[in-house]
Amino acid sequence: MRRIRLTLQYDGSAYNGWQVQPSGSTIQGLLQDCIHRLTGERVKVIGAGRTDAGVHAIEQIAAFDSGSGLCTDVMKRALNALLPEDIRVAGVSEVGADFHPRYSAQSKRYVYLIANMTDVPVFLRGYVWWIRFPLDIAAMRTASASFLGSHDFSSFRGAGCGAKSPVRSVSCLEAERFREAAFLFTTFQGDFIRVSIEANAFLRHMVRNIVGTLVEVGRGKTEPPRVKAILEARERKAAGPTAPAGGLFLEKIIY
Amino acid sequence: MRRIRLTLQYDGSAYNGWQVQPSGSTIQGLLQDCIHRLTGERVKVIGAGRTDAGVHAIEQIAAFDSGSGLCTDVMKRALNALLPEDIRVAGVSEVGADFHPRYSAQSKRYVYLIANMTDVPVFLRGYVWWIRFPLDIAAMRTASASFLGSHDFSSFRGAGCGAKSPVRSVSCLEAERFREAAFLFTTFQGDFIRVSIEANAFLRHMVRNIVGTLVEVGRGKTEPPRVKAILEARERKAAGPTAPAGGLFLEKIIY
Repeated sequence: MRRIRLTLQYDGSAYNGWQVQPSGSTIQGLLQDCIHRLTGERVKVIGAGRTDAGVHAIEQIAAFDSGSGLCTDVMKRALNALLPEDIRVAGVSEVGADFHPRYSAQSKRYVYLIANMTDVPVFLRGYVWWIRFPLDIAAMRTASASFLGSHDFSSFRGAGCGAKSPVRSVSCLEAERFREAAFLFTTFQGDFIRVSIEANAFLRHMVRNIVGTLVEVGRGKTEPPRVKAILEARERKAAGPTAPAGGLFLEKIIY
Repeated sequence: MRRIRLTLQYDGSAYNGWQVQPSGSTIQGLLQDCIHRLTGERVKVIGAGRTDAGVHAIEQIAAFDSGSGLCTDVMKRALNALLPEDIRVAGVSEVGADFHPRYSAQSKRYVYLIANMTDVPVFLRGYVWWIRFPLDIAAMRTASASFLGSHDFSSFRGAGCGAKSPVRSVSCLEAERFREAAFLFTTFQGDFIRVSIEANAFLRHMVRNIVGTLVEVGRGKTEPPRVKAILEARERKAAGPTAPAGGLFLEKIIY
Protein backbone atom coordinates (compact mmCIF):
# COMPACT_ATOMS: atom_id res chain seq x y z
CA MET A 1 0.00 0.00 0.00
CA ARG A 2 1.12 3.54 -0.76
CA ARG A 3 -0.20 6.78 0.67
CA ILE A 4 -1.07 9.21 -2.11
CA ARG A 5 -1.26 12.93 -1.50
CA LEU A 6 -3.48 15.10 -3.72
CA THR A 7 -3.34 18.85 -4.22
CA LEU A 8 -6.83 19.93 -5.25
CA GLN A 9 -8.56 23.03 -6.52
CA TYR A 10 -12.32 23.40 -6.79
CA ASP A 11 -15.17 25.75 -7.37
CA GLY A 12 -17.58 24.71 -4.62
CA SER A 13 -20.66 26.38 -6.15
CA ALA A 14 -22.21 23.17 -7.44
CA TYR A 15 -21.33 20.90 -4.53
CA ASN A 16 -22.73 19.90 -1.19
CA GLY A 17 -19.32 20.46 0.41
CA TRP A 18 -16.25 18.31 0.86
CA GLN A 19 -17.60 15.48 2.94
CA VAL A 20 -19.79 12.66 1.61
CA GLN A 21 -23.44 13.37 2.51
CA PRO A 22 -26.62 11.31 2.39
CA SER A 23 -27.69 13.46 -0.56
CA GLY A 24 -26.02 15.74 -3.05
CA SER A 25 -22.74 15.60 -4.87
CA THR A 26 -19.59 16.15 -2.77
CA ILE A 27 -15.92 16.64 -3.60
CA GLN A 28 -14.85 13.70 -1.43
CA GLY A 29 -17.56 11.50 -2.93
CA LEU A 30 -16.63 12.36 -6.52
CA LEU A 31 -12.94 11.77 -5.85
CA GLN A 32 -13.67 8.40 -4.26
CA ASP A 33 -15.84 7.41 -7.23
CA CYS A 34 -13.15 8.45 -9.71
CA ILE A 35 -10.44 6.56 -7.80
CA HIS A 36 -12.70 3.52 -7.81
CA ARG A 37 -13.16 3.78 -11.57
CA LEU A 38 -9.42 4.19 -12.00
CA THR A 39 -8.01 1.55 -9.63
CA GLY A 40 -10.99 -0.62 -8.71
CA GLU A 41 -10.38 0.21 -5.05
CA ARG A 42 -12.90 1.59 -2.58
CA VAL A 43 -10.79 4.12 -0.71
CA LYS A 44 -11.50 6.85 1.80
CA VAL A 45 -10.05 10.21 0.74
CA ILE A 46 -9.21 12.36 3.76
CA GLY A 47 -9.18 16.13 3.26
CA ALA A 48 -7.24 18.71 5.24
CA GLY A 49 -10.22 21.05 5.37
CA ARG A 50 -13.81 19.86 5.37
CA THR A 51 -15.20 22.75 3.34
CA ASP A 52 -18.95 23.42 3.59
CA ALA A 53 -21.43 23.37 0.73
CA GLY A 54 -20.61 26.18 -1.70
CA VAL A 55 -17.13 26.91 -0.30
CA HIS A 56 -14.24 27.01 -2.80
CA ALA A 57 -10.65 25.80 -2.58
CA ILE A 58 -7.65 27.46 -4.19
CA GLU A 59 -5.59 24.70 -2.58
CA GLN A 60 -6.95 21.76 -0.65
CA ILE A 61 -4.77 18.82 0.38
CA ALA A 62 -6.11 15.27 0.59
CA ALA A 63 -4.71 11.74 0.89
CA PHE A 64 -5.74 8.13 0.45
CA ASP A 65 -4.12 4.71 0.60
CA SER A 66 -3.87 2.65 -2.55
CA GLY A 67 -2.45 -0.64 -3.69
CA SER A 68 -2.42 0.58 -7.28
CA GLY A 69 0.88 0.60 -9.11
CA LEU A 70 -0.07 3.58 -11.29
CA CYS A 71 2.60 6.26 -11.36
CA THR A 72 1.59 9.62 -9.93
CA ASP A 73 1.66 11.42 -13.30
CA VAL A 74 -0.72 8.94 -14.86
CA MET A 75 -2.95 9.13 -11.79
CA LYS A 76 -3.14 12.93 -12.07
CA ARG A 77 -4.00 12.85 -15.75
CA ALA A 78 -6.54 10.05 -15.35
CA LEU A 79 -8.28 11.68 -12.38
CA ASN A 80 -8.55 14.98 -14.24
CA ALA A 81 -10.01 13.16 -17.23
CA LEU A 82 -12.66 11.58 -14.96
CA LEU A 83 -13.44 14.56 -12.72
CA PRO A 84 -15.76 17.41 -13.76
CA GLU A 85 -14.03 20.65 -14.83
CA ASP A 86 -14.85 22.45 -11.57
CA ILE A 87 -12.63 20.04 -9.61
CA ARG A 88 -8.97 19.78 -10.63
CA VAL A 89 -6.08 17.71 -9.32
CA ALA A 90 -3.11 20.09 -9.40
CA GLY A 91 -0.65 17.57 -8.00
CA VAL A 92 -0.24 13.92 -7.01
CA SER A 93 2.67 12.59 -4.96
CA GLU A 94 3.58 9.61 -2.83
CA VAL A 95 4.03 10.38 0.85
CA GLY A 96 5.00 8.47 3.99
CA ALA A 97 2.40 6.51 5.93
CA ASP A 98 2.72 9.01 8.78
CA PHE A 99 1.35 11.84 6.62
CA HIS A 100 -2.19 12.85 7.54
CA PRO A 101 -3.72 15.80 5.64
CA ARG A 102 -5.42 17.16 8.76
CA TYR A 103 -3.29 16.04 11.72
CA SER A 104 0.02 16.76 9.99
CA ALA A 105 -1.08 20.31 9.14
CA GLN A 106 0.53 23.12 11.09
CA SER A 107 -2.10 25.64 10.08
CA LYS A 108 -4.73 26.48 7.48
CA ARG A 109 -5.44 29.71 5.70
CA TYR A 110 -8.83 30.86 4.48
CA VAL A 111 -9.76 33.98 2.56
CA TYR A 112 -13.19 35.60 2.56
CA LEU A 113 -14.24 38.17 -0.03
CA ILE A 114 -16.82 40.92 0.29
CA ALA A 115 -17.95 43.23 -2.52
CA ASN A 116 -19.06 46.34 -0.64
CA MET A 117 -20.77 48.15 -3.48
CA THR A 118 -24.01 48.80 -5.32
CA ASP A 119 -23.47 46.29 -8.09
CA VAL A 120 -21.13 43.32 -8.30
CA PRO A 121 -19.27 42.66 -11.58
CA VAL A 122 -21.04 39.67 -13.11
CA PHE A 123 -17.83 37.63 -13.38
CA LEU A 124 -17.22 37.82 -9.62
CA ARG A 125 -20.76 37.17 -8.45
CA GLY A 126 -20.19 33.58 -7.29
CA TYR A 127 -17.11 34.46 -5.26
CA VAL A 128 -18.08 37.37 -3.04
CA TRP A 129 -20.58 38.30 -0.36
CA TRP A 130 -22.41 41.25 -1.86
CA ILE A 131 -23.05 43.90 0.81
CA ARG A 132 -24.62 47.18 -0.29
CA PHE A 133 -24.53 49.18 2.97
CA PRO A 134 -21.15 50.82 3.69
CA LEU A 135 -18.75 48.96 5.97
CA ASP A 136 -16.33 50.69 8.32
CA ILE A 137 -13.08 48.90 7.57
CA ALA A 138 -11.21 50.62 10.43
CA ALA A 139 -13.72 49.25 12.96
CA MET A 140 -13.46 45.78 11.38
CA ARG A 141 -9.67 45.90 11.64
CA THR A 142 -9.84 46.92 15.30
CA ALA A 143 -12.28 44.10 16.04
CA SER A 144 -10.07 41.59 14.19
CA ALA A 145 -7.33 41.91 16.80
CA SER A 146 -9.57 40.37 19.50
CA PHE A 147 -9.61 37.04 17.66
CA LEU A 148 -5.83 36.62 17.64
CA GLY A 149 -4.34 33.98 19.93
CA SER A 150 -5.88 30.92 21.60
CA HIS A 151 -9.54 31.20 22.52
CA ASP A 152 -12.58 29.09 23.20
CA PHE A 153 -14.44 29.73 19.93
CA SER A 154 -17.80 28.28 21.06
CA SER A 155 -19.56 31.54 20.07
CA PHE A 156 -18.35 30.96 16.52
CA ARG A 157 -18.99 27.23 16.33
CA GLY A 158 -21.67 26.01 13.96
CA ALA A 159 -24.29 23.46 15.04
CA GLY A 160 -23.22 19.87 14.42
CA CYS A 161 -19.52 20.59 14.84
CA GLY A 162 -17.79 17.34 15.79
CA ALA A 163 -14.61 18.81 17.32
CA LYS A 164 -13.70 17.64 20.83
CA SER A 165 -12.34 20.97 21.98
CA PRO A 166 -13.67 24.42 21.02
CA VAL A 167 -10.24 25.97 21.56
CA ARG A 168 -8.45 27.17 18.45
CA SER A 169 -5.39 29.32 17.94
CA VAL A 170 -5.69 32.13 15.39
CA SER A 171 -2.28 33.33 14.20
CA CYS A 172 -3.47 35.88 11.63
CA LEU A 173 -6.68 37.77 10.96
CA GLU A 174 -6.58 40.67 8.58
CA ALA A 175 -9.32 42.73 6.94
CA GLU A 176 -8.18 44.87 4.02
CA ARG A 177 -10.00 47.10 1.58
CA PHE A 178 -9.14 47.14 -2.12
CA ARG A 179 -10.33 49.61 -4.75
CA GLU A 180 -10.26 47.08 -7.56
CA ALA A 181 -10.46 43.37 -8.26
CA ALA A 182 -8.59 41.61 -11.03
CA PHE A 183 -10.29 39.24 -13.43
CA LEU A 184 -8.14 37.79 -16.19
CA PHE A 185 -7.15 40.66 -18.52
CA THR A 186 -9.24 43.31 -16.80
CA THR A 187 -9.87 44.91 -13.41
CA PHE A 188 -13.13 46.03 -11.94
CA GLN A 189 -13.27 49.20 -9.87
CA GLY A 190 -15.18 49.08 -6.61
CA ASP A 191 -14.87 48.47 -2.91
CA PHE A 192 -13.71 45.01 -2.07
CA ILE A 193 -12.85 43.69 1.38
CA ARG A 194 -10.64 40.68 1.83
CA VAL A 195 -10.57 38.92 5.20
CA SER A 196 -7.61 36.54 5.57
CA ILE A 197 -7.49 34.18 8.52
CA GLU A 198 -4.96 31.58 9.60
CA ALA A 199 -5.36 29.19 12.51
CA ASN A 200 -4.04 25.82 13.64
CA ALA A 201 -7.50 24.42 12.86
CA PHE A 202 -11.08 25.64 12.53
CA LEU A 203 -14.42 24.70 14.06
CA ARG A 204 -17.42 24.22 11.81
CA HIS A 205 -18.51 27.52 10.18
CA MET A 206 -15.88 29.33 12.28
CA VAL A 207 -14.55 31.55 9.47
CA ARG A 208 -18.02 32.40 8.21
CA ASN A 209 -19.25 33.19 11.74
CA ILE A 210 -16.22 35.42 12.40
CA VAL A 211 -16.79 37.23 9.08
CA GLY A 212 -20.50 37.58 9.88
CA THR A 213 -19.55 39.20 13.19
CA LEU A 214 -16.96 41.47 11.58
CA VAL A 215 -19.64 42.66 9.17
CA GLU A 216 -21.91 43.51 12.14
CA VAL A 217 -18.99 45.58 13.43
CA GLY A 218 -18.45 47.15 10.01
CA ARG A 219 -22.05 48.27 9.73
CA GLY A 220 -21.99 49.71 13.26
CA LYS A 221 -24.33 47.20 14.92
CA THR A 222 -21.54 45.86 17.17
CA GLU A 223 -18.83 48.02 18.75
CA PRO A 224 -15.31 46.62 18.21
CA PRO A 225 -14.63 46.17 21.97
CA ARG A 226 -17.74 43.95 22.26
CA VAL A 227 -16.03 41.19 20.28
CA LYS A 228 -14.06 40.22 23.39
CA ALA A 229 -17.32 39.78 25.34
CA ILE A 230 -18.80 37.77 22.44
CA LEU A 231 -15.85 35.37 22.60
CA GLU A 232 -16.19 35.11 26.38
CA ALA A 233 -19.92 34.39 26.16
CA ARG A 234 -19.10 31.01 24.61
CA GLU A 235 -22.49 30.63 23.01
CA ARG A 236 -23.33 30.83 19.36
CA LYS A 237 -26.19 33.31 19.72
CA ALA A 238 -23.80 35.94 21.14
CA ALA A 239 -22.03 36.30 17.77
CA GLY A 240 -23.20 37.58 14.38
CA PRO A 241 -24.80 35.62 11.54
CA THR A 242 -22.99 33.09 9.34
CA ALA A 243 -21.55 34.73 6.23
CA PRO A 244 -22.64 33.09 2.93
CA ALA A 245 -20.52 30.19 1.67
CA GLY A 246 -19.77 31.59 -1.80
CA GLY A 247 -17.30 34.23 -0.56
CA LEU A 248 -15.09 31.69 1.24
CA PHE A 249 -11.93 30.10 -0.17
CA LEU A 250 -9.65 27.57 1.46
CA GLU A 251 -6.38 29.16 0.39
CA LYS A 252 -3.58 27.00 1.73
CA ILE A 253 -2.68 24.21 4.13
CA ILE A 254 0.67 24.77 5.82
CA TYR A 255 2.70 21.70 6.85
CA MET B 1 -40.02 60.10 -26.09
CA ARG B 2 -36.45 59.93 -24.81
CA ARG B 3 -33.61 57.77 -26.11
CA ILE B 4 -32.02 55.86 -23.24
CA ARG B 5 -28.49 54.50 -23.47
CA LEU B 6 -27.49 51.49 -21.39
CA THR B 7 -23.99 50.29 -20.49
CA LEU B 8 -24.22 46.57 -19.87
CA GLN B 9 -22.04 43.79 -18.55
CA TYR B 10 -22.93 40.13 -18.79
CA ASP B 11 -21.72 36.59 -18.39
CA GLY B 12 -23.05 34.98 -21.54
CA SER B 13 -22.67 31.36 -20.31
CA ALA B 14 -26.36 30.85 -19.59
CA TYR B 15 -27.78 32.73 -22.59
CA ASN B 16 -28.68 32.11 -26.17
CA GLY B 17 -26.82 35.28 -27.17
CA TRP B 18 -27.83 38.93 -27.41
CA GLN B 19 -30.62 38.79 -29.95
CA VAL B 20 -34.15 37.53 -29.27
CA GLN B 21 -34.49 33.97 -30.60
CA PRO B 22 -37.47 31.67 -31.16
CA SER B 23 -36.21 29.66 -28.19
CA GLY B 24 -33.90 30.21 -25.26
CA SER B 25 -33.25 33.14 -22.99
CA THR B 26 -31.43 36.12 -24.56
CA ILE B 27 -29.93 39.31 -23.15
CA GLN B 28 -32.05 41.51 -25.44
CA GLY B 29 -35.18 39.54 -24.57
CA LEU B 30 -34.59 39.77 -20.83
CA LEU B 31 -33.88 43.50 -21.02
CA GLN B 32 -37.06 44.09 -23.03
CA ASP B 33 -39.09 42.07 -20.52
CA CYS B 34 -37.62 43.99 -17.57
CA ILE B 35 -38.26 47.36 -19.26
CA HIS B 36 -41.84 46.25 -19.89
CA ARG B 37 -42.29 45.34 -16.22
CA LEU B 38 -40.78 48.68 -15.21
CA THR B 39 -42.46 51.10 -17.62
CA GLY B 40 -45.31 49.14 -19.16
CA GLU B 41 -43.81 49.78 -22.60
CA ARG B 42 -42.96 47.21 -25.26
CA VAL B 43 -39.64 48.55 -26.55
CA LYS B 44 -36.93 47.23 -28.82
CA VAL B 45 -33.50 47.40 -27.23
CA ILE B 46 -30.76 47.78 -29.87
CA GLY B 47 -27.30 46.51 -28.98
CA ALA B 48 -23.97 47.68 -30.39
CA GLY B 49 -22.68 44.10 -30.68
CA ARG B 50 -24.95 41.14 -31.34
CA THR B 51 -22.96 38.68 -29.24
CA ASP B 52 -23.48 34.96 -29.95
CA ALA B 53 -24.73 32.35 -27.50
CA GLY B 54 -22.18 31.95 -24.70
CA VAL B 55 -20.21 35.12 -25.50
CA HIS B 56 -19.57 37.53 -22.61
CA ALA B 57 -19.54 41.31 -22.43
CA ILE B 58 -17.27 43.43 -20.26
CA GLU B 59 -18.97 46.44 -21.82
CA GLN B 60 -21.88 46.34 -24.23
CA ILE B 61 -23.80 49.46 -25.23
CA ALA B 62 -27.51 49.40 -26.00
CA ALA B 63 -30.33 51.89 -26.43
CA PHE B 64 -34.11 52.11 -26.55
CA ASP B 65 -36.79 54.78 -26.81
CA SER B 66 -39.10 55.34 -23.88
CA GLY B 67 -41.91 57.66 -22.89
CA SER B 68 -41.29 56.90 -19.23
CA GLY B 69 -40.50 59.82 -16.94
CA LEU B 70 -38.32 57.70 -14.61
CA CYS B 71 -34.97 59.31 -13.91
CA THR B 72 -31.92 57.40 -15.11
CA ASP B 73 -30.70 56.54 -11.58
CA VAL B 74 -34.02 54.96 -10.66
CA MET B 75 -34.09 53.12 -13.99
CA LYS B 76 -30.63 51.66 -13.36
CA ARG B 77 -31.49 50.49 -9.86
CA ALA B 78 -34.85 49.08 -10.91
CA LEU B 79 -33.45 47.21 -13.92
CA ASN B 80 -30.70 45.67 -11.80
CA ALA B 81 -33.31 44.60 -9.26
CA LEU B 82 -35.30 42.87 -12.01
CA LEU B 83 -32.41 41.38 -14.04
CA PRO B 84 -30.61 38.16 -13.07
CA GLU B 85 -27.19 38.59 -11.42
CA ASP B 86 -25.30 37.58 -14.56
CA ILE B 87 -26.58 40.67 -16.42
CA ARG B 88 -25.82 44.08 -14.91
CA VAL B 89 -26.65 47.59 -16.00
CA ALA B 90 -23.51 49.59 -15.24
CA GLY B 91 -24.88 52.88 -16.51
CA VAL B 92 -28.05 54.56 -17.81
CA SER B 93 -28.07 57.95 -19.54
CA GLU B 94 -30.29 60.02 -21.81
CA VAL B 95 -28.89 60.57 -25.29
CA GLY B 96 -29.91 62.44 -28.43
CA ALA B 97 -32.29 60.83 -30.94
CA ASP B 98 -29.41 60.59 -33.42
CA PHE B 99 -27.51 58.14 -31.22
CA HIS B 100 -27.55 54.58 -32.53
CA PRO B 101 -25.53 51.98 -30.57
CA ARG B 102 -24.34 50.26 -33.76
CA TYR B 103 -24.30 52.92 -36.47
CA SER B 104 -22.81 55.60 -34.22
CA ALA B 105 -19.96 53.31 -33.17
CA GLN B 106 -16.53 54.12 -34.55
CA SER B 107 -15.16 50.69 -33.69
CA LYS B 108 -15.58 47.68 -31.39
CA ARG B 109 -13.02 45.76 -29.43
CA TYR B 110 -13.21 42.08 -28.60
CA VAL B 111 -10.85 39.96 -26.52
CA TYR B 112 -10.42 36.21 -26.85
CA LEU B 113 -8.70 34.12 -24.19
CA ILE B 114 -6.89 30.83 -24.60
CA ALA B 115 -5.50 28.71 -21.76
CA ASN B 116 -2.65 26.83 -23.44
CA MET B 117 -1.90 24.33 -20.70
CA THR B 118 -2.58 20.89 -19.29
CA ASP B 119 -5.19 21.95 -16.74
CA VAL B 120 -7.25 25.09 -16.51
CA PRO B 121 -7.74 26.72 -13.10
CA VAL B 122 -11.33 25.90 -12.14
CA PHE B 123 -12.27 29.55 -11.63
CA LEU B 124 -11.36 30.46 -15.20
CA ARG B 125 -12.92 27.47 -16.96
CA GLY B 126 -15.94 29.33 -18.35
CA TYR B 127 -13.85 32.11 -19.84
CA VAL B 128 -11.11 30.47 -21.87
CA TRP B 129 -10.64 28.08 -24.76
CA TRP B 130 -8.68 25.24 -23.24
CA ILE B 131 -6.00 24.03 -25.70
CA ARG B 132 -3.59 21.37 -24.50
CA PHE B 133 -1.21 21.13 -27.48
CA PRO B 134 1.50 23.81 -27.52
CA LEU B 135 0.86 26.91 -29.63
CA ASP B 136 3.60 28.86 -31.41
CA ILE B 137 2.82 32.41 -30.39
CA ALA B 138 5.44 33.89 -32.74
CA ALA B 139 3.74 32.26 -35.75
CA MET B 140 0.34 33.48 -34.51
CA ARG B 141 1.69 37.03 -34.22
CA THR B 142 3.11 36.90 -37.73
CA ALA B 143 -0.20 35.63 -39.11
CA SER B 144 -2.12 38.35 -37.24
CA ALA B 145 -0.58 41.08 -39.37
CA SER B 146 -2.33 39.76 -42.50
CA PHE B 147 -5.72 40.65 -41.05
CA LEU B 148 -4.94 44.32 -40.54
CA GLY B 149 -6.60 46.82 -42.83
CA SER B 150 -9.73 46.59 -45.01
CA HIS B 151 -10.49 43.17 -46.43
CA ASP B 152 -13.32 41.09 -47.74
CA PHE B 153 -13.79 38.78 -44.74
CA SER B 154 -16.06 36.24 -46.48
CA SER B 155 -13.69 33.42 -45.44
CA PHE B 156 -14.37 34.34 -41.81
CA ARG B 157 -18.09 34.98 -42.11
CA GLY B 158 -20.42 32.62 -40.28
CA ALA B 159 -23.48 31.13 -41.98
CA GLY B 160 -26.61 33.25 -41.57
CA CYS B 161 -24.71 36.54 -41.38
CA GLY B 162 -27.06 39.35 -42.43
CA ALA B 163 -24.45 41.97 -43.33
CA LYS B 164 -24.77 43.59 -46.76
CA SER B 165 -21.03 43.88 -47.36
CA PRO B 166 -18.36 41.37 -46.27
CA VAL B 167 -15.73 44.14 -46.13
CA ARG B 168 -14.50 45.10 -42.67
CA SER B 169 -11.60 47.20 -41.51
CA VAL B 170 -9.43 45.71 -38.75
CA SER B 171 -7.39 48.39 -36.96
CA CYS B 172 -5.77 46.17 -34.35
CA LEU B 173 -5.10 42.46 -33.96
CA GLU B 174 -2.68 41.35 -31.30
CA ALA B 175 -1.87 37.94 -29.87
CA GLU B 176 0.08 38.00 -26.61
CA ARG B 177 1.24 35.29 -24.24
CA PHE B 178 0.99 35.71 -20.46
CA ARG B 179 2.56 33.53 -17.80
CA GLU B 180 -0.20 34.10 -15.26
CA ALA B 181 -3.83 35.09 -15.02
CA ALA B 182 -5.27 37.14 -12.18
CA PHE B 183 -8.38 36.08 -10.33
CA LEU B 184 -9.45 38.29 -7.45
CA PHE B 185 -6.81 38.02 -4.73
CA THR B 186 -4.72 35.36 -6.43
CA THR B 187 -2.95 34.61 -9.69
CA PHE B 188 -2.70 31.31 -11.51
CA GLN B 189 0.53 30.35 -13.23
CA GLY B 190 0.29 28.92 -16.72
CA ASP B 191 0.34 29.82 -20.38
CA PHE B 192 -2.43 32.15 -21.40
CA ILE B 193 -2.88 33.73 -24.80
CA ARG B 194 -4.95 36.86 -25.26
CA VAL B 195 -6.08 37.85 -28.73
CA SER B 196 -7.33 41.45 -28.92
CA ILE B 197 -9.08 42.64 -32.03
CA GLU B 198 -10.55 45.98 -32.99
CA ALA B 199 -12.50 46.71 -36.16
CA ASN B 200 -15.08 49.17 -37.43
CA ALA B 201 -17.60 46.32 -37.31
CA PHE B 202 -17.64 42.52 -37.39
CA LEU B 203 -19.34 39.87 -39.47
CA ARG B 204 -21.09 36.99 -37.77
CA HIS B 205 -18.56 34.69 -35.97
CA MET B 206 -15.74 36.77 -37.47
CA VAL B 207 -13.64 37.01 -34.28
CA ARG B 208 -14.11 33.32 -33.46
CA ASN B 209 -13.23 32.29 -37.02
CA ILE B 210 -10.10 34.45 -36.99
CA VAL B 211 -9.07 32.98 -33.62
CA GLY B 212 -9.78 29.45 -34.90
CA THR B 213 -7.50 30.15 -37.86
CA LEU B 214 -4.77 31.67 -35.67
CA VAL B 215 -4.86 28.50 -33.55
CA GLU B 216 -4.35 26.41 -36.71
CA VAL B 217 -1.30 28.58 -37.35
CA GLY B 218 -0.16 28.23 -33.73
CA ARG B 219 -0.29 24.44 -33.88
CA GLY B 220 1.60 24.36 -37.18
CA LYS B 221 -1.25 23.21 -39.42
CA THR B 222 -1.29 26.46 -41.37
CA GLU B 223 1.80 28.47 -42.31
CA PRO B 224 1.52 32.18 -41.44
CA PRO B 225 1.87 33.34 -45.08
CA ARG B 226 -1.15 31.19 -46.02
CA VAL B 227 -3.50 33.51 -44.13
CA LYS B 228 -3.33 36.01 -46.99
CA ALA B 229 -4.49 33.31 -49.41
CA ILE B 230 -7.26 32.28 -47.00
CA LEU B 231 -8.55 35.86 -47.00
CA GLU B 232 -8.36 36.01 -50.78
CA ALA B 233 -10.24 32.72 -51.18
CA ARG B 234 -13.40 34.46 -49.90
CA GLU B 235 -15.05 31.26 -48.87
CA ARG B 236 -15.66 30.03 -45.35
CA LYS B 237 -14.17 26.55 -45.87
CA ALA B 238 -10.75 28.06 -46.64
CA ALA B 239 -10.33 29.24 -43.03
CA GLY B 240 -9.98 27.39 -39.70
CA PRO B 241 -12.75 26.25 -37.34
CA THR B 242 -14.88 28.55 -35.20
CA ALA B 243 -13.33 29.04 -31.76
CA PRO B 244 -15.69 28.22 -28.84
CA ALA B 245 -17.92 31.04 -27.60
CA GLY B 246 -16.88 30.93 -23.92
CA GLY B 247 -13.45 32.50 -24.51
CA LEU B 248 -14.85 35.59 -26.22
CA PHE B 249 -15.56 38.95 -24.56
CA LEU B 250 -16.99 42.08 -26.10
CA GLU B 251 -14.63 44.53 -24.40
CA LYS B 252 -15.56 48.01 -25.53
CA ILE B 253 -17.54 50.01 -28.08
CA ILE B 254 -15.72 53.14 -29.18
CA TYR B 255 -17.81 56.16 -30.23
